[in-house]
Amino acid sequence: MAHKDTAAVPVKGSKLMVIGGASLVGSATVDEMLARGAEQVVIFDNLSFGGQPNIAHLLDNPRVKIVQGDILKLHQLLAATEGLDGIVHLAAYMTLNFDRDPWGGIDVNIRGLQNVLEACRANRVKKVIFASSNAVYGYGPGVKGDLVEDTPFHAAGAPPAAILYGASKIIGEQLCRDAHRKHGQDYIVLRYSTVYGERQHYRAANALYIVETHDAIKRGQRPKVIGDGSETKHFVYVGDLARANCMALEAPTTDVAVNTSGPAPVTTLELVTLVAELSGRPDLTPELVEPDPTKVRLTSGGAFEIVHTAAKAAIGWEPKVDMREGLRRLLAWRDAEAMRNAAE
Amino acid sequence: MAHKDTAAVPVKGSKLMVIGGASLVGSATVDEMLARGAEQVVIFDNLSFGGQPNIAHLLDNPRVKIVQGDILKLHQLLAATEGLDGIVHLAAYMTLNFDRDPWGGIDVNIRGLQNVLEACRANRVKKVIFASSNAVYGYGPGVKGDLVEDTPFHAAGAPPAAILYGASKIIGEQLCRDAHRKHGQDYIVLRYSTVYGERQHYRAANALYIVETHDAIKRGQRPKVIGDGSETKHFVYVGDLARANCMALEAPTTDVAVNTSGPAPVTTLELVTLVAELSGRPDLTPELVEPDPTKVRLTSGGAFEIVHTAAKAAIGWEPKVDMREGLRRLLAWRDAEAMRNAAE
Repeated sequence: MAHKDTAAVPVKGSKLMVIGGASLVGSATVDEMLARGAEQVVIFDNLSFGGQPNIAHLLDNPRVKIVQGDILKLHQLLAATEGLDGIVHLAAYMTLNFDRDPWGGIDVNIRGLQNVLEACRANRVKKVIFASSNAVYGYGPGVKGDLVEDTPFHAAGAPPAAILYGASKIIGEQLCRDAHRKHGQDYIVLRYSTVYGERQHYRAANALYIVETHDAIKRGQRPKVIGDGSETKHFVYVGDLARANCMALEAPTTDVAVNTSGPAPVTTLELVTLVAELSGRPDLTPELVEPDPTKVRLTSGGAFEIVHTAAKAAIGWEPKVDMREGLRRLLAWRDAEAMRNAAE
Repeated sequence: MAHKDTAAVPVKGSKLMVIGGASLVGSATVDEMLARGAEQVVIFDNLSFGGQPNIAHLLDNPRVKIVQGDILKLHQLLAATEGLDGIVHLAAYMTLNFDRDPWGGIDVNIRGLQNVLEACRANRVKKVIFASSNAVYGYGPGVKGDLVEDTPFHAAGAPPAAILYGASKIIGEQLCRDAHRKHGQDYIVLRYSTVYGERQHYRAANALYIVETHDAIKRGQRPKVIGDGSETKHFVYVGDLARANCMALEAPTTDVAVNTSGPAPVTTLELVTLVAELSGRPDLTPELVEPDPTKVRLTSGGAFEIVHTAAKAAIGWEPKVDMREGLRRLLAWRDAEAMRNAAE
């Protein structure tokens, strides 16, 4: 499918692979690829985070192939990438896992990507979409105002695990650039902001606010807000990221890193209030609590906004789903899941 | 030798190891440890960069033990760290090597340090001094003004290899912090600025100016300055770093990262003029030339100064040797080497 004179990999008719394909973003990306007419989509995943329910609806799809594999095993990647046109690489440790096991995080986020790039080079896979993160801008009070693609990495005062995670993404982006310079590997880096949406899990430090708030409200309790609630969060809806992954493959662009964030940031107080309202309990007003010093928390001092105009220019993407609509979908999915589980 | 109530490891009477001990900084550090009365100093080095001449004067010293080993082999580190009180860890790829072999750079700078920390934990080595770099502040026009320990990492526009190197040092620092938090590992991070001095080699991108200038003058040619010569460099004399390494071991302090830079920055024009003057050829005035786009060069846009006051507070260190005196010593050493080689 690939053309020599452009970095475009049209999804329709192509053979693609999503590494970490059983994850929140991965499963949504596979759905989007299938909807756009991909000939085959390989889900490469070690299934270590219990993603099986996310891809249960895909098991009987003749266009889907599931490979239980490990990106630390280059021979498995070499086998799985044969004949592919493009790859979306999502598999990574996030901050909470880096705290538990920094060695594993470095293995997966850095060595894993090196293996992916080696496999793509060996099998001439035209284009790699690498999931980076707004963590490349760092943490703490230094992170404020408009975050654009050349904003530096602020680390002062952040926990080791958070800095390790952010730096692992900085390194990942440069490994892609290096592969482009040395071997002509086409790639696009998407710097995801905090993802939320249907199939939300409990592993991401930032998105926890949403599910913890919803859980509290279901128990009839007032949701808790840590600090004064003025902290900024800038989420992005999972379906918007699935579109971004496909549009990055299809764009003629290569060798660029762009932010993919939602329409606008929210404060944690706004977020929790919105979840209470959408859950039908606007009376359960948020309770402000002191931070627990024993937990890894990523606090942002100043107000910030992750600017996504470069993504529009590079791959034609902009977010479509705002927090109200995205949260409505997430909460509807969680309620349906709870009912389904109760009925079983 | 180690005390339980302080992170101090007195050099006198201790068993110490310098990883990368045959290097420019390593050999000077071993000399300094011996002068301070260390009981034993192990030089752990793979000798891959031809450092043998740097340690030739130490081969017959009964207090020196040379281990030709590889930090990628944990079992070698486990054997070498038995019974040690402290370690200075210098072994690393720098930017030019990262450009040639990014995979090797990540192995050595990240996996290598992980192995060192594992070995120190297993053998209860009291304190680790980790050589980081002012590369953690990044590159390009964003790097300007006073660089202090919480200055962020600027990467926009820099070559992949430079960013990989800087990020590998950011990760290294955090692995030390993580080991302190999880296992009580005492450590101090020293962020070296560009090192120069006797036994200067040709592998460091920044210090090349000095030796290239000296070489040109010896041939009777005008030295070349790339660009307009206004670019800032902030060097540190190798003997000052050897002292910093020993003082960091001896300080009661732990869990801190500090800058170790020379007395003041210079512009490249000042530097080249000074080398010409010290070489007895002030008439060979610098020639300004355009940058060669095919070479990895680290350009700094703005004027900057790497502030070292935190090192004074943390470990009592400040630089003693200014550029004029340090360059005088370096050039005298090179001239003596050239005469010795010519005589052989």
